[in-house]
Amino acid sequence: MSALANDTLLRALLRQPTAYTPVWLMRQAGRYLPEYNATRSRAGSFLALATSPELATEVTLQPLDRYALDAAILFSDILTVPDAMGLGLRFAAGEGPRFEHPLRNEAQILGLRPPALERLRYVFDAVAQIRRALTRDGVQRVPLIGFSGSPWTLACYMVEGQGSDDWRQTKTLLYSRPDLMHHVLRVNAEAVAAYLNAQIEAGAQAVMLFDSWGGALADGAFQEFSLRYSAQVLAALRREHAGARVPAILFTKGGGMWLQQMAECGADALGVDWTVGLGAARSAVGERVALQGNLDPSVLFATPAAIEQQVRAVLDSYGPMSATQPGGHVFNLGHGISQFTPPEHVQVLVDTVHSHSRALHR
Amino acid sequence: MSALANDTLLRALLRQPTAYTPVWLMRQAGRYLPEYNATRSRAGSFLALATSPELATEVTLQPLDRYALDAAILFSDILTVPDAMGLGLRFAAGEGPRFEHPLRNEAQILGLRPPALERLRYVFDAVAQIRRALTRDGVQRVPLIGFSGSPWTLACYMVEGQGSDDWRQTKTLLYSRPDLMHHVLRVNAEAVAAYLNAQIEAGAQAVMLFDSWGGALADGAFQEFSLRYSAQVLAALRREHAGARVPAILFTKGGGMWLQQMAECGADALGVDWTVGLGAARSAVGERVALQGNLDPSVLFATPAAIEQQVRAVLDSYGPMSATQPGGHVFNLGHGISQFTPPEHVQVLVDTVHSHSRALHR
Repeated sequence: MSALANDTLLRALLRQPTAYTPVWLMRQAGRYLPEYNATRSRAGSFLALATSPELATEVTLQPLDRYALDAAILFSDILTVPDAMGLGLRFAAGEGPRFEHPLRNEAQILGLRPPALERLRYVFDAVAQIRRALTRDGVQRVPLIGFSGSPWTLACYMVEGQGSDDWRQTKTLLYSRPDLMHHVLRVNAEAVAAYLNAQIEAGAQAVMLFDSWGGALADGAFQEFSLRYSAQVLAALRREHAGARVPAILFTKGGGMWLQQMAECGADALGVDWTVGLGAARSAVGERVALQGNLDPSVLFATPAAIEQQVRAVLDSYGPMSATQPGGHVFNLGHGISQFTPPEHVQVLVDTVHSHSRALHR
Repeated sequence: MSALANDTLLRALLRQPTAYTPVWLMRQAGRYLPEYNATRSRAGSFLALATSPELATEVTLQPLDRYALDAAILFSDILTVPDAMGLGLRFAAGEGPRFEHPLRNEAQILGLRPPALERLRYVFDAVAQIRRALTRDGVQRVPLIGFSGSPWTLACYMVEGQGSDDWRQTKTLLYSRPDLMHHVLRVNAEAVAAYLNAQIEAGAQAVMLFDSWGGALADGAFQEFSLRYSAQVLAALRREHAGARVPAILFTKGGGMWLQQMAECGADALGVDWTVGLGAARSAVGERVALQGNLDPSVLFATPAAIEQQVRAVLDSYGPMSATQPGGHVFNLGHGISQFTPPEHVQVLVDTVHSHSRALHR
């Protein structure tokens, strides 16, 4: 086992004292970085990049070489699990993901099974390889976060076959045949739990569930079709590995209305988007979970002075750590970083988080 | 002046007793109706339809001839005001709206002025003509709702030039040059107030501000750049006309987090989307405003039995009227009705609202 040079992220997720607020960015290894685009073009396609442990390792580490980020996150796609179930993931040039065989009839749905983990071996190999690449002379720079789409978010793509503004096919199934939707979600929850446990086994030191489309659901439907299955995944996770606690983060984009209920789902931390005031969110969740977020990614298009000001405002809105909860805020964006972000602006963000947050941790 | 045969909507918006919960649907005159599509194809284009008082009157009344809706809403576009400011509204086939001259530099922005109302005469003519068409033998069937985009939502399209996933240009301006964004919003607030007052003068009996993109803003930015200017419009509105109170509704899509603050902005009612639980929303706003909403439009893709069940759940989530607030719920969708809605499903919705809600009004 290697020692962790910087365990700030893990401590903050577990609400333990840290010297400053840790920061990482959703999609930090991505298209805003010229070195990422170079690797991707060498790979030939996004799928070739995402399925190669070597190349996934390379791009995972790129943002860490530029910025003093407090975590690495596995470079992968959120649709690996349904792809391994046989739905046939494809990326057409200039478009989002598509499944060749979306779930459109009862027979298909009832035939759905969790995938053999062997089909996802390339992901676990990437996790192990990234852990090794993060470590030099027995010291690991920062922890590695593993992740999966939530059962609901996977179901959205599996039924719709692609991204959507209104998830028409998905919601038609949900409201017309809730029994079939629950079947998909049960299979997904089992598959996602096994997938994340295998990532933990391979070396992921924290895990995150991306419930990107939970916020598309109505109040009531969210609890029944999204949160319930995220909670099942969280309950089935291996939360200790190699003697360390493995914190779990649940992020529902557009889920600000439901933070009180989400705080009881078994996650150590909840991700929040920028529509949520962190002070109000902190009151809503009490000392049950840490919070992760929530700068509007569009702030990074502005001037360095404006970025500094907005980053400080996010830190201040969470407020100083308390005696009973000495940690509990992980700085992040409220959504993935935009491909149009000037890379030098990320430096301003990271530096401001680190310098400004020290006073909040005294 | 004509008598109003059905004033349920106006009474509910003012939280007065009614026999049942009134219902209308955002975009109720629209592409899901074959008769609308027939009129639109006769018009030749969406803009030709929207700018003809005769044709706008025809399509405004179409859904009322099919369903027992409790209100008519002016058929128009939300971008009429910036078009009249000279930005050049265009609709390309199969695409959303675009402005030929989006606001991209300081000189353009500082030169922006509220439009001469004469350029919007076709809208006020449509309002007057719809009022006449709703009236037979001195009795008006249902009240007519006028509307406008909110200052912020208009600014989104004016700066971006078109719809957007991330409003990159708009937010870059907001964060980099808040002074210029405030200038646009001041002009818009003045223009929107004058526009709605002219609709009221022409015969609109309630008005609605569509803040469709308020939910794209961060907490803090929403209050500063959206709510503040909606409140300015509401403060400038003529709230009495021809001896009757003219209620005003503010709808911020994705604004569920901010209902407590929105309840103090001067609106009589707040529109809410389906992510909001109406019971929680009612607690948040207290007896300050009525609520309008909030069925997920996707429910209308499901079976009649499922539609009935979900409509009842929305009504029950608001709950029975109280002694101190005998009215206060207007049933609606949480967003515009989808073009893919089977028209016969709307009948199920309207009938269920009317029949099921009577017990809540005893």
